[in-house]
Amino acid sequence: MKNENSTVDRLIERILAMKNPSVVGIDPDYSKIPACYHGIGGSDGDTLAAVAAEIEFFGKDIIDAVCDIVPAIKPQMAFYEKYGWAGVRAFERTVAYAKERGLVVIEDAKRGDIGNTAYAYAQGHLSDVEVSGGMRVRGYDVDFLTVSPYLGSESLAPMVDAAVTHGKGIFILVKTSNRSAGEVQDARTARGETVSEMIADYVANEAERAVGAYGYSGIGAVVGATYPQEMRTFRQRMPRSFFLVPGYGAQGGAAADAVGCFCADGLGAVVNSSRGLLYSHMSEQERAACTREEYRARVRAATIHMRDALLDALRKEYGKTLLYG
Amino acid sequence: MKNENSTVDRLIERILAMKNPSVVGIDPDYSKIPACYHGIGGSDGDTLAAVAAEIEFFGKDIIDAVCDIVPAIKPQMAFYEKYGWAGVRAFERTVAYAKERGLVVIEDAKRGDIGNTAYAYAQGHLSDVEVSGGMRVRGYDVDFLTVSPYLGSESLAPMVDAAVTHGKGIFILVKTSNRSAGEVQDARTARGETVSEMIADYVANEAERAVGAYGYSGIGAVVGATYPQEMRTFRQRMPRSFFLVPGYGAQGGAAADAVGCFCADGLGAVVNSSRGLLYSHMSEQERAACTREEYRARVRAATIHMRDALLDALRKEYGKTLLYG
Repeated sequence: MKNENSTVDRLIERILAMKNPSVVGIDPDYSKIPACYHGIGGSDGDTLAAVAAEIEFFGKDIIDAVCDIVPAIKPQMAFYEKYGWAGVRAFERTVAYAKERGLVVIEDAKRGDIGNTAYAYAQGHLSDVEVSGGMRVRGYDVDFLTVSPYLGSESLAPMVDAAVTHGKGIFILVKTSNRSAGEVQDARTARGETVSEMIADYVANEAERAVGAYGYSGIGAVVGATYPQEMRTFRQRMPRSFFLVPGYGAQGGAAADAVGCFCADGLGAVVNSSRGLLYSHMSEQERAACTREEYRARVRAATIHMRDALLDALRKEYGKTLLYG
Repeated sequence: MKNENSTVDRLIERILAMKNPSVVGIDPDYSKIPACYHGIGGSDGDTLAAVAAEIEFFGKDIIDAVCDIVPAIKPQMAFYEKYGWAGVRAFERTVAYAKERGLVVIEDAKRGDIGNTAYAYAQGHLSDVEVSGGMRVRGYDVDFLTVSPYLGSESLAPMVDAAVTHGKGIFILVKTSNRSAGEVQDARTARGETVSEMIADYVANEAERAVGAYGYSGIGAVVGATYPQEMRTFRQRMPRSFFLVPGYGAQGGAAADAVGCFCADGLGAVVNSSRGLLYSHMSEQERAACTREEYRARVRAATIHMRDALLDALRKEYGKTLLYG
């Protein structure tokens, strides 16, 4: 099934236009955001709402700093919903702002539940919800959502269906970037494959339902940058799926490690960095003293640095077959 | 470590007082809630907010209908967050109302992410979050949270730590009740145990850190009612952990199947039913025509019916060792 005008095509067009397959992860960690954001939301006594306003300013500044150099952002829902409903409202406003600025939005929420509950998540995050009078209203309306597969294929199907129907994308966790990822993900099924491989085969199969104009599918996979060898095997196992690659930077993955998740045309993957672009390039003192303008400039510089490192590694690996750069 | 005044003790005291180990799951599915709730929230043009107000009335009515006969409710976050920030606000207000009415609140959200992100979820849902001026404010402040283990022990540790520190509880997904649960959960690790068994051993081990006055721990497990045999093995494998048992009713689990998740004293588990108590005991026509008062009476009757069925099965199985009933 060809899925024209899908978000995976829009993502690819942005990658080609920006000559950049990297993604800025937005994790608004209050204890780490520069001091210049503290208090700018005002406070009406409801301090969770005040912090939510601050992280909204923070996220929008990140968007302003990078929207003309990256294809997409990846806001992490955990860092918004921890501030309650006001945090979720800040998330929604940040998503809307990113889309206004032309960015593709990848919501990192790792949702996963039994069928009818997964359907509720899929409606809210990827499609629309029924409201009074039989009308339907857009939910979070993100372009991509990350999805956790612990409950098996029945729990994934409503997410896949929503993505296919609405021209959206999902990234199903196949092999995550964290230290203890293998405990569950390297276990073996009765057929002898690992859990990661089984999920990869599910992704590859469902991906065929939503292939876009460039031959790639929005039914994608999360594969960590921390497993460079395995990544190449997964690349072959899911030939049409886009990969979301976490673990770059703060978690130890390097540009040379990440190239294996790409196809020879330089497409097929986006590499995310969150803490590496938001925080770790500045000392605590610098974050305490900088202005918003200075902070935006530092985030932009770090993002350009990541783009260039990735592009160098891709050129070295794929040379002339690279469609950009 | 003894964890006095923990929520697991409060849960046990409620079970003993109500002579009832069953839990009412609140899944406010707009397409299924009785028509008498449609439109009662008013509408200011923001229709998501209007629906959120309706599901808030709906949830509070459920609470009024059952708060003197069950120990706990289990609101499912998916059915709130699908309505955006207004839905999350309805969730928060429903939780607060349930606690006012003396109920223990089990948030079903199945969160799971890498360490620093899991920490953000743990703060928001189980403990408190840092706000302006170094102050800390309570987040959702639920008593228990369900947690998904696909990312392994590193992703679970911040949740366990938050529960231990704040006297809260978590239910880690060990074996879920849905059809495709075994795909991932029955895979085998290099040591030959299944993923479920490995997670169960993790739960059993961490449970020792938070044993309450009754000898049970709030570091608990989700074990589906749809696997009566396996359940008994898991019961032995996690002797101190409380179980949250889904799958009763709509998913096919029966009272006789659920008894295996209890210890001989009738403690150690709570059995949840959501759709079976909210919707499936009434026809579509009945849900279209009933008043709120009639609906509350029907939910109460279904809840009493479940309590009695469970109690009968427990008496049959454990007889005189049962601490209640």
